[in-house]
Amino acid sequence: MIILGIDPGTATTGYGVIKIPEDILGREFSYDIELVDYGNIFTRKEQPMADRLWELHRKLNSIIEKFQPDQIAVEMLFFGSNLKTAISVGQARGVVLMSAAKFRLPISEYTGPSVKLMITGSGRADKDQVHEGVRKFLGVDGRKRKKLKVNWKGGHLDDATDGLAIAICHVLKMVSK
Amino acid sequence: MIILGIDPGTATTGYGVIKIPEDILGREFSYDIELVDYGNIFTRKEQPMADRLWELHRKLNSIIEKFQPDQIAVEMLFFGSNLKTAISVGQARGVVLMSAAKFRLPISEYTGPSVKLMITGSGRADKDQVHEGVRKFLGVDGRKRKKLKVNWKGGHLDDATDGLAIAICHVLKMVSK
Repeated sequence: MIILGIDPGTATTGYGVIKIPEDILGREFSYDIELVDYGNIFTRKEQPMADRLWELHRKLNSIIEKFQPDQIAVEMLFFGSNLKTAISVGQARGVVLMSAAKFRLPISEYTGPSVKLMITGSGRADKDQVHEGVRKFLGVDGRKRKKLKVNWKGGHLDDATDGLAIAICHVLKMVSK
Repeated sequence: MIILGIDPGTATTGYGVIKIPEDILGREFSYDIELVDYGNIFTRKEQPMADRLWELHRKLNSIIEKFQPDQIAVEMLFFGSNLKTAISVGQARGVVLMSAAKFRLPISEYTGPSVKLMITGSGRADKDQVHEGVRKFLGVDGRKRKKLKVNWKGGHLDDATDGLAIAICHVLKMVSK
């Protein structure tokens, strides 16, 4: 089963793609989350907002068509954010949700703090802690863990890591049901 | 020249389509704004948000393809609104802007209060005053004004009227340049 995690934003939308066994519910899952891909969808600041949103939609289409996810997990806005952020992120979120609906993909939503809590044990974890948590779940650290099939790419990791964190969070939710 | 005005919302997106002469800049314009169509795009509350946004996009596509507007005017969020509204309307706005960009249509944005100010003379006008202002600009009232080519349809007028108000507001901005 392929899960696509998305952290929506107008300038940068981070995404992470992971693979889990179909029978994950009957297994100890921590060794079985496989990193497939991750990255960022950037849009250009010089462009009008509408064009940036259209670009976001087209790039998301490509990612969905390439990885054929079974489910999508999206970060939802936490009500601690300010109004300007809410409008801007709301616009990107609208395009992300719409794009998922286009492909009839089931969507789950998680707030930032709940993702942090599940990945690190603290709802107030900083970016480094989230990054470290994601690496652990994907088996980058620890002798017993599976070796990564994809190398950790350089640059702009924050949003992409959040995309992965949301996807992993969704797996944890599924197995805990 | 065809102008499409849009008042975005998740439950209801109002739209208004008006036609103005190509040479409007050299004429007294108030008699020449022609009502082409107006209405609401409703989405169903029982549906998941993503599906509603996808439905909004598809219905907007149909309207744009039917009326072939040259320009689009969209209501932008006024910063007096609350966070919950900002996220919800932000999502619908994102889909509206993206849909306009898909057709490479020029987009202009106006806040609610500035639309009210231009249509009625007061930024705090109520819905009835805006409705009345829109009727005047479209020549429904007053002996010298052109007769409507389309009858005023019944029901759910508020958002559709806002759509028309935004389109008219854009014409006023164009002629005042």
